[in-house]
Amino acid sequence: MIQIIAFDADDTLWHNENLYARIQEKFRELLSGYHPAAEVNRRLYEMEMHNMAYFGYGIKAFTLSMIETAIELSDGQIQAREIQAIIGFAREMLDTEIHLMEQVEDVVAGLAHSYPLMLVTKGDMFEQQAKIAKSGIADYFDYIDVVNRKNEESYRMLLRRYGIDARHVLMVGNSLKSDVLPFVAIGGQAVHIPYHITWAHETVAALQGAQQPYFELAHIGLLPALVERLNQSS
Amino acid sequence: MIQIIAFDADDTLWHNENLYARIQEKFRELLSGYHPAAEVNRRLYEMEMHNMAYFGYGIKAFTLSMIETAIELSDGQIQAREIQAIIGFAREMLDTEIHLMEQVEDVVAGLAHSYPLMLVTKGDMFEQQAKIAKSGIADYFDYIDVVNRKNEESYRMLLRRYGIDARHVLMVGNSLKSDVLPFVAIGGQAVHIPYHITWAHETVAALQGAQQPYFELAHIGLLPALVERLNQSS
Repeated sequence: MIQIIAFDADDTLWHNENLYARIQEKFRELLSGYHPAAEVNRRLYEMEMHNMAYFGYGIKAFTLSMIETAIELSDGQIQAREIQAIIGFAREMLDTEIHLMEQVEDVVAGLAHSYPLMLVTKGDMFEQQAKIAKSGIADYFDYIDVVNRKNEESYRMLLRRYGIDARHVLMVGNSLKSDVLPFVAIGGQAVHIPYHITWAHETVAALQGAQQPYFELAHIGLLPALVERLNQSS
Repeated sequence: MIQIIAFDADDTLWHNENLYARIQEKFRELLSGYHPAAEVNRRLYEMEMHNMAYFGYGIKAFTLSMIETAIELSDGQIQAREIQAIIGFAREMLDTEIHLMEQVEDVVAGLAHSYPLMLVTKGDMFEQQAKIAKSGIADYFDYIDVVNRKNEESYRMLLRRYGIDARHVLMVGNSLKSDVLPFVAIGGQAVHIPYHITWAHETVAALQGAQQPYFELAHIGLLPALVERLNQSS
């Protein structure tokens, strides 16, 4: 019996990864005088992974990694005005409007009539809370949490804090690694709704996904019917 | 009757602002070839305030503000290796060990025998949680929260989430603006323990402090006696 529905936010409720993709295109363009574009993405990703233990997730961490990558790939020839342009990318990202994915508002509003809803998003708290506030749908959620990690332990801690049994929660998200696999591993149910771009860090080998069953939906518009089916059969 | 004791962390339980002061000294030194040192702090602070709405609090935000200030104050003459040095400052800050203030461990351990303890810290969640983990005293706290803002509304929300009545909470912190005044305004009790450096952003005009009574202690070692006195008289 599903009693609570939990949602990931970035690339589940609203577009996010396409913003990073757009800025990376600008970044490659900025460095085009110094370095072949093909290398830039690879090196930037390596820098992000290297910096993650220091800087964590989010736009500020991404920006510092872009600056370091630019210094490295230009052999220290990058100019101050170009670094200023990279900081400008950060401002542009932080200023970008939230674009909800199709049908999200109807689905969330509809489910909120019958279920308490939870929003669980990973990343920089300041940035995530700004997005939640701008999304226009925050009021539908009874629980909103920004977490540093999405793994079995962090989900367990979160549910324990609220006194919620994982077996009664359906978690909905675009990331197998963050939203689906750890959640089914702690005894919850989960729905995977793929987004057309997945950040390399969020991909998992197919084998890891095979340990527990989960649901797969092509888009969020199909979620209410799934919830109804689950609660009829229980 | 005090039932729960809540603590701010930075500059209340452990040193923090002195780290920012030390890095600002290095930053002034780095810019000394471009600009008179006296101006640097003022301009950096203005940049931090300007950037706060975009970047929030914390080391990454501070670093981006240092980079922008360096570009501006050098009229764009700053070199890539100097900007790399500023990013090095960020790594140094994030790597710094936590230094607890004197008597903190004894006081916290002692109070934890008799009271549930709460830790409420403002700032970048990733950075704050890393500090909490490194502090070695996290296990004494029953509630740990990183918040974006410390004002009447955020304290009310936090206590409501846990079903706690503000009248039964004693909040301890070094910032009148963030820890003391909003907390007494919502009906709680508060203890101010000044730190020898206060970030300009955390200062308040003396008049604003005069609306509600609060306690003032010279150091945290005096806290257990205050708690005992409060609970004997009630």
